[in-house]
Amino acid sequence: MLGKRKRNFVNHWHINEDAFDPTLKKVLSQETVFTIGNGYFCTRGTFEEGYPRNNPATLLYGVFDHIPVAKEELANAPDWTLIQLFLNGERFRLDRGTILDYHRSLDLRQGLLKRSILWRSPAGIEVRVTSERFASLDDEHVGAIHYSATLEQTPQGQPCEVAIIATLNTAEGNYDVMHLETVDQGNVDDLQWLHCETKKTLVQIVMATTFQSEIPNFSKEPLNSDIAPAIRYSGTLKPGQTFSADKLVVIYTSRDATDDPRTAAIQHLQKLQYDTEFPYDQLLANNREAWSAFWNRADIIIEGDEKAQVGARYNLYQLRINVSSHDSRYSVAAKGMTGFGYRGHVFHDTEIFMLPFYTFVMPEVARNLLIYRYRLLDAARQKATSNGFQGAQFPWESTLSGGETTPSSIIHPETGEVIPVLNGFIEIHITASIAYATWRYWHVTGDDTFMEKFGSEILLSSALFWVSRVEEDAEKGDYVITDVIGPDEWHEHVNNNVFTNFMARQNIKYGLAALEWLQQHHPEKAEQLAHQLELTEQDLAHWHEVSNKIRLPRDPQTSLFEQFDGFFNLEPLDQSKYHGRKDSYQGILGVHAIQKYRIIKQADVLMLLTILTEEFDEQTKRVNWDYYSPITDHDYGSSLTPALHAVLASELGETQVAYQLLMKGALVDIENLRGNTPEGIHAACAGAVWQAIVFGFAGLRIKDDQVRINPHLPERWTRLAFTIQFRGQTMPFDIHS
Amino acid sequence: MLGKRKRNFVNHWHINEDAFDPTLKKVLSQETVFTIGNGYFCTRGTFEEGYPRNNPATLLYGVFDHIPVAKEELANAPDWTLIQLFLNGERFRLDRGTILDYHRSLDLRQGLLKRSILWRSPAGIEVRVTSERFASLDDEHVGAIHYSATLEQTPQGQPCEVAIIATLNTAEGNYDVMHLETVDQGNVDDLQWLHCETKKTLVQIVMATTFQSEIPNFSKEPLNSDIAPAIRYSGTLKPGQTFSADKLVVIYTSRDATDDPRTAAIQHLQKLQYDTEFPYDQLLANNREAWSAFWNRADIIIEGDEKAQVGARYNLYQLRINVSSHDSRYSVAAKGMTGFGYRGHVFHDTEIFMLPFYTFVMPEVARNLLIYRYRLLDAARQKATSNGFQGAQFPWESTLSGGETTPSSIIHPETGEVIPVLNGFIEIHITASIAYATWRYWHVTGDDTFMEKFGSEILLSSALFWVSRVEEDAEKGDYVITDVIGPDEWHEHVNNNVFTNFMARQNIKYGLAALEWLQQHHPEKAEQLAHQLELTEQDLAHWHEVSNKIRLPRDPQTSLFEQFDGFFNLEPLDQSKYHGRKDSYQGILGVHAIQKYRIIKQADVLMLLTILTEEFDEQTKRVNWDYYSPITDHDYGSSLTPALHAVLASELGETQVAYQLLMKGALVDIENLRGNTPEGIHAACAGAVWQAIVFGFAGLRIKDDQVRINPHLPERWTRLAFTIQFRGQTMPFDIHS
Repeated sequence: MLGKRKRNFVNHWHINEDAFDPTLKKVLSQETVFTIGNGYFCTRGTFEEGYPRNNPATLLYGVFDHIPVAKEELANAPDWTLIQLFLNGERFRLDRGTILDYHRSLDLRQGLLKRSILWRSPAGIEVRVTSERFASLDDEHVGAIHYSATLEQTPQGQPCEVAIIATLNTAEGNYDVMHLETVDQGNVDDLQWLHCETKKTLVQIVMATTFQSEIPNFSKEPLNSDIAPAIRYSGTLKPGQTFSADKLVVIYTSRDATDDPRTAAIQHLQKLQYDTEFPYDQLLANNREAWSAFWNRADIIIEGDEKAQVGARYNLYQLRINVSSHDSRYSVAAKGMTGFGYRGHVFHDTEIFMLPFYTFVMPEVARNLLIYRYRLLDAARQKATSNGFQGAQFPWESTLSGGETTPSSIIHPETGEVIPVLNGFIEIHITASIAYATWRYWHVTGDDTFMEKFGSEILLSSALFWVSRVEEDAEKGDYVITDVIGPDEWHEHVNNNVFTNFMARQNIKYGLAALEWLQQHHPEKAEQLAHQLELTEQDLAHWHEVSNKIRLPRDPQTSLFEQFDGFFNLEPLDQSKYHGRKDSYQGILGVHAIQKYRIIKQADVLMLLTILTEEFDEQTKRVNWDYYSPITDHDYGSSLTPALHAVLASELGETQVAYQLLMKGALVDIENLRGNTPEGIHAACAGAVWQAIVFGFAGLRIKDDQVRINPHLPERWTRLAFTIQFRGQTMPFDIHS
Repeated sequence: MLGKRKRNFVNHWHINEDAFDPTLKKVLSQETVFTIGNGYFCTRGTFEEGYPRNNPATLLYGVFDHIPVAKEELANAPDWTLIQLFLNGERFRLDRGTILDYHRSLDLRQGLLKRSILWRSPAGIEVRVTSERFASLDDEHVGAIHYSATLEQTPQGQPCEVAIIATLNTAEGNYDVMHLETVDQGNVDDLQWLHCETKKTLVQIVMATTFQSEIPNFSKEPLNSDIAPAIRYSGTLKPGQTFSADKLVVIYTSRDATDDPRTAAIQHLQKLQYDTEFPYDQLLANNREAWSAFWNRADIIIEGDEKAQVGARYNLYQLRINVSSHDSRYSVAAKGMTGFGYRGHVFHDTEIFMLPFYTFVMPEVARNLLIYRYRLLDAARQKATSNGFQGAQFPWESTLSGGETTPSSIIHPETGEVIPVLNGFIEIHITASIAYATWRYWHVTGDDTFMEKFGSEILLSSALFWVSRVEEDAEKGDYVITDVIGPDEWHEHVNNNVFTNFMARQNIKYGLAALEWLQQHHPEKAEQLAHQLELTEQDLAHWHEVSNKIRLPRDPQTSLFEQFDGFFNLEPLDQSKYHGRKDSYQGILGVHAIQKYRIIKQADVLMLLTILTEEFDEQTKRVNWDYYSPITDHDYGSSLTPALHAVLASELGETQVAYQLLMKGALVDIENLRGNTPEGIHAACAGAVWQAIVFGFAGLRIKDDQVRINPHLPERWTRLAFTIQFRGQTMPFDIHS
């Protein structure tokens, strides 16, 4: 029934799939890979006709509903892609009949997902089904599908009764959890609309849809339903004849700037229908233009290495579809809007891993992502206060309001074991990550207005948090930070995590520098903030003292950092015993046992040396690289690590190693390397891939307010080209080996 | 818009509702109250047209799906009741427009739910909608609705375009959790069928439906859909004209005795359609006959007290609709099939509270409920073994396989606090409850075949468990049972809970007596069991010793039992401080704090004195009643308590108190006394109501193999009549005051 199993075949602009693998895990993983989106919404690459146990999802930027334990999650909107085909009453479905030809392809250049299948039904009817779909990057409220079915053969050449039903399906939840309830439903002529709301947060979601065919002699009918409103065509096809139709959907929510999302959706769709004779073609052309504009800014050209080329572009595609072009009320989730993993929560993944891309390529987006954090300041102040500290402590996970959305514990679904989740309580370095990204954004863009209005308050409020969070060690005359989780989350309740301490130090320095800048350029703002934060000269002197005396455990001879107090005394782990494993060391050894081993989940000290590259000399980087890289779980630890490690490896001249690390990141989802792509793509990793290429192989740095590059291209790369924005200037780079 | 809020008005056979209260809690509570059912399925009393945030549910006897943490739950089947009405495009919905007249009534005599509403639409159209529905007690696969809409008035007397859509809705979960996926869907002429399966357990569920109207000039059309297949009528009504139609549904699952539930459902419905000209009327007549046969056996007649009369009947109705007439693979859940509470899990509620009714009134059902436990013996042996004991230890909560389905912990949905649930580990008295019910069933029915084939193995295996579970106190020369939870679940990790110890003693005695009986009457079975359980003469002597020397802490002077070691030393709780509370003492004080107080959730010692009434003299009962009754949370502790306490109160001559306790039980759901009726009715309480009346007010006892009564009727009751079965004989009782 099926062609042989293949990996996705890739070329410069396409993710291709030339055979259908019905293994459920593969089906679900490919649904993620073939997600389309435009920053307002993403839609997973499920088949139009559905498939048993598939996970259709359309997630909308910032549309959340409440859930127990995990608190909030992006609420799956009605599935607008459903189109079912019946041939003499037989249903077109890939779990039955015979697939004679199969091709699916995501065209990254225009965000267009195409499919073509030749299928023989159990009764012997052969049909060629093709579809293409996109989420318009030009008109973010719009999704579109062009669908066709050609009757190729029937037994005895008889004509065939054909029915095609295009549906908006409300009966899809986040996995099994339903968030929507229909408020009302109806049609205006042959336009159908569906108005629902999220059950707890009461966000109004409206979809309007049309399904238009030019085919003569088919009857068309709207089927009103609260649950699955549909438009049905029915008629007769002879062998060789084709039915084709365009399904358009327009989506509005009560989070949009409209009092009446229902009218907005209906009128928007009516305008699309009446403004042009061929609305689908016009939408497609406009979408292509919008994608072209994106690629003109963001593309990375790699010559000599097709896999790396398409891998890079796929990750850039993800960085685009998962972020709004204009909305500063939400940020990029760990899985974007491509799956249900991490439930749409925002982590420091945005600031450390993705912000460099946005800062250098789409600074207007970077600005919004930082304004998102600015909007959370009130909640962050509350978190600091309720923990007995001053200033602003950002939540480890957040959604819209800035309340801490990290669950406080989870119950293992099979064993029933209660697993406390401490990250929301003691993984505190995110506050410094946000300050770091704020500072970098300013440094790269020179956006003084942002710094005055938003950035300075973030920097000072977060600095104040750290000054109140450190404890003085009177004996040693320095300051320590105890009881935290560092980026390496396998070790909990640790003291003086180097990453946390160093970043806290930087944060305080950024705060002081920002205040100084304000005092020079915007003295009234400086005064206002100093007043608001109740800062005295004495306080500021103390800030200086803390930032200079924070403990940074480091061997003075070798420059080797100790990841946290006592790390060097942990038991070594003999990794050779776990050859061929398919799980992380934590998964194998358990949450408790892993703590005693000198094995780490992800870059921690090495992340510090990467993101604060200018603070450390080459010797320090080399020594720490040699020590920490071999004890990091590159394969199953965190997807955040490999591509980020590539930056450092590249700087240290380990180009071959860096290349392997890059590819582990670039292909993490296309090849489902970690087995968890069904739950969504790895957004932080996508950002790290950009960093690996630009900061790693191109060696881009800013020094003395100048952009410099220091390329180390992998052997096969004959050319590497990309463009950045630096302080208002567009700077193309074109590196040939 | 609404009539004034009223309590349900009741008469001898009807639960009535004469005004619509749109408070969500009331809406949901009434959905539970107005549930119809037949033991194969129950369907909650949601409105045909739906209502915002309603909880439609059709739960099928023994159809479970897996869920995280709580392990398994009855999976909500597609909602077969949905019928939507549109008048000139306006939707009939009670959350808009004006309700001019409203009446709903559940006729207990024939299990028939009726509704009649006069409604004015926002556009001024007045329509009278009536419906009646039942789950056929005669043909358990069948549900039926007779629906009509009469156009009463329109603006200017214009005719009105009318559409009526009758749907099977798959988009309803258990609250928000969806368990079903459609396998296939289609129609055979104007019969529609829907084939779905539970996502994890893969139970196949098929519904076939028709929607038949005799009205001329309306067009009819099947609307195929995987999500919400429907049948639509559309046409025109003039003022004064009526549309009416019958919706029939036939339900089969792969748990039925058929290889092909789809064909079974379709053929069954076709037969109903073709066998008679008026299938709805015929089904209704047959249903009435079947209910009549039930009431002939089970009715309790109370004259002089209408409220008690209908309360009693309502609880008998629940005892009927929530249990299969023939299936021994499942039992009666804590909430039956009327709501999602306790997820369809089976507790000792069945054996202690409900079995007496079934044993005395429907002994063939009682037999099946005990065979259900027999079927769990393998799993119960595994539980004993894995805990280091012998014999069979029954799970505290169970579904089909007998594995322990009590969750091991829950996370508070709001606070995130992890609450360990210990009942599955240490609330062990259920094993003795099952033995007790087994013994009683045999005693009352004289069903020797049951005892030989099933009962004896239950009694001996459970006795063996207790003998291995007790610990010898060498110093005191007796046996103790430590670290348990008794029926009063507010006190955990207690030692020598009197209820547990006494019931364990009885269980061992039952085991010995059963073996002795087998040895006399079925020696080969006796030998086989002794072999299987590896019982020697020495073992049996030890059983005797244990049963005679198990510790039963009791004041030799006063006969007051101490609920468990140290109970008398607990801190007294000043209940007067909590006057007007709306929560249990545990809810107010917390799971931890409550443990130190001398306040109890539910009957514990007093339950023992009630169910083993012949073991205790009146003085013991009096002393313990006086002590324990005042420190029991009658209002918000457990719904199990009040009606059961009434038995003892009645026996002690406290007829007025007994009457109040009875009514707290009889009206618990009709009046939503505990606020949790939305999650389903209180099935154990229904059984306790029967006990309160028959064992309490009628004073029925078996003594020296004779049935005796000793009535103490409440003041207003002029007559109490009921019927029991005793050893094959039907015994009517008719008591006049």
